[in-house]
Amino acid sequence: MEARAGGLVLALNLVGTAVFALSGGLAGVRRGMDLFGVLVLALVTAAAGGGVRDVLIGAIPPAFVAGWHALALALAAGLFAFRFPDLLERVKAPELLLDAAGLGVFAATGTEKALAFGVSPLMAAILGMVTGIGGGMVRDVLTGRPPEVLYADIYAVAALAGAVLVAGGHQFGIRAAMTLRPGAAL
Amino acid sequence: MEARAGGLVLALNLVGTAVFALSGGLAGVRRGMDLFGVLVLALVTAAAGGGVRDVLIGAIPPAFVAGWHALALALAAGLFAFRFPDLLERVKAPELLLDAAGLGVFAATGTEKALAFGVSPLMAAILGMVTGIGGGMVRDVLTGRPPEVLYADIYAVAALAGAVLVAGGHQFGIRAAMTLRPGAAL
Amino acid sequence: MEARAGGLVLALNLVGTAVFALSGGLAGVRRGMDLFGVLVLALVTAAAGGGVRDVLIGAIPPAFVAGWHALALALAAGLFAFRFPDLLERVKAPELLLDAAGLGVFAATGTEKALAFGVSPLMAAILGMVTGIGGGMVRDVLTGRPPEVLYADIYAVAALAGAVLVAGGHQFGIRAAMTLRPGAAL
Repeated sequence: MEARAGGLVLALNLVGTAVFALSGGLAGVRRGMDLFGVLVLALVTAAAGGGVRDVLIGAIPPAFVAGWHALALALAAGLFAFRFPDLLERVKAPELLLDAAGLGVFAATGTEKALAFGVSPLMAAILGMVTGIGGGMVRDVLTGRPPEVLYADIYAVAALAGAVLVAGGHQFGIRAAMTLRPGAAL
Repeated sequence: MEARAGGLVLALNLVGTAVFALSGGLAGVRRGMDLFGVLVLALVTAAAGGGVRDVLIGAIPPAFVAGWHALALALAAGLFAFRFPDLLERVKAPELLLDAAGLGVFAATGTEKALAFGVSPLMAAILGMVTGIGGGMVRDVLTGRPPEVLYADIYAVAALAGAVLVAGGHQFGIRAAMTLRPGAAL
Repeated sequence: MEARAGGLVLALNLVGTAVFALSGGLAGVRRGMDLFGVLVLALVTAAAGGGVRDVLIGAIPPAFVAGWHALALALAAGLFAFRFPDLLERVKAPELLLDAAGLGVFAATGTEKALAFGVSPLMAAILGMVTGIGGGMVRDVLTGRPPEVLYADIYAVAALAGAVLVAGGHQFGIRAAMTLRPGAAL
C-alpha cells in the first residue's frame, strides 16, 4: 500500500517532467532556437519548479540533481520536441494543455513532498503551487512572453485539480509522507 | 533592550512584506491578471528578496516558509490590491513609493540577518541590498518591464537610507544579532 | 601538482568572474542605467551561474558569499565598464566574446566543483553548463532581451571547449577534486 503510494508519486513526477520538457522544448523550437537552446529550455522548464521547492524545504541536492531519471527523461523529451515539433503542434493549443497537465501533477506531488519534509499544510500547498507553476513561468520569461499561468483561466482549474488530488489523498497522506521520507531523493 | 531590537526587526519585516505585496498585487491588477495571478505576484514580490538571501546564507527553510505571518500578510495585501486598486492608485506613483519604502526596510533587516549568520559586513550589506531589490526585480520581469530599480534614482536614496539605518544601529548591532540568532526563523 | 590544479581553477574562476561582470556592466551602460544599476547587473551576471550551482550541490553559503575576491573583482569590473565603456566597445561584439570566454571557463570550473561534491559526471557537466550560461541568461532577462545563449552558435563552441577542457583534465580530475574538497569555499 505504502509502496504503491510512493510509486504513484514517482510516476506522476515523471509524467510532469515529460510534459513540461515537451512544452519547454516546443517553445524553444517556435522561437527558432538551435538544439542546444531547445534542450536547455526543456530542462529548465521541467526542473525549475521542483528545484525551487526542494531548495526551499532543504532537500538539497534537489531530486533533479541527485537522480538521473528526470534528467534523462527531460533531455529525451526536449530532443523529441526538436525533431518532431509537428506532432506536438497537431494538438490544439499544445503548450497550454501540457502546462495544465504538468501543473496539476506537480502541484499534487510537490505538496506531498513538502508535507513529507514537515512543512505546514498551508505552506505545503503553496509550495505545491510553486512546483506546478515555476517551470512554465521561467520558460515564458526566457522566451520573452508574459507568464501565461498568471493570465489563463485553465490554470486555476488545473491547480484546483491538483489540490483536490492531494486533499483526496490526505486521508492516507500521512502514510504516503512516511513512505517518501526514506526515498527523499525522489 | 534586546527584545526591543528583535521586535523592531520583526515589525520592519512585516512592513516590508506588506508594501511589496501591495506593489506586486497592484502590478498584477494593472496587467489585467485574475485573482490567482494577482495573489501569486503579490507573494513572489514579497518573498523573493528575503528568500534568495536566506538560501544564500544557509537559513533553510527561509523565514517565509518556516513561519506563516509573512505568508498570511502577503496574501491579505494581495487580496486588498485586487479588490481596492483604486485606493492604491490615488497615491501618486504608488509602486515607486511602495518599492522605495520596502527597499529601505528590507535592506536594513536583510543586512541585520546576514550579519547574524556570520556573513562579513560588506557581503551582509550586499545581501541586504539583494533582500531589498530582489522582489521588485522579479515582479518587473514577470510583468514584462525593465526592472525599475536599476533605472530610477529614488532607489539609490532608499537603499542609502536602509544602509544608514543599519550603520546607525551598528553600535548595538552585535546585540541585535545575538537576539536574532535564536529567533533565526524570523 | 595538486596545488597547481587548485590554483588553476581559482584563476579560471576569477577570469570568468571578471569577463561576466564586464559583460553585465556594459549591458547596463548601454541601457542607460546609473552606477547603481550597472554595479548590480555586473554583480548578478558574474554571480548567478555559480550561485545556482552552489545551492544545487549544497555548497552553502556559495563561494561568492563566503569569500570576497570574486565580489571585489566583480564590483571593480562593473566600475570599469561604467567609466570606460568605450574601451570595451572597441572590441567587435564585445558582449558575445566576453560571454563565450566566460562560458567556457565557468563550464570547466563548474564541472570540476560539482564533481568534487560527489555529483555524477553527467549531472556535473550539466551543472557546469548552468554555471556557464546562468549569468548571461539572467543579464539578458533583466535587460529585456531574449537570452542570447539560447540562440547564438558561438556558445555551443565555447561550451564544447569547456567540456573538452574538463574531459582533458579528467585523467588527473580525481586529484583535482581532492584538492578542491578542503578548499570547497572556492
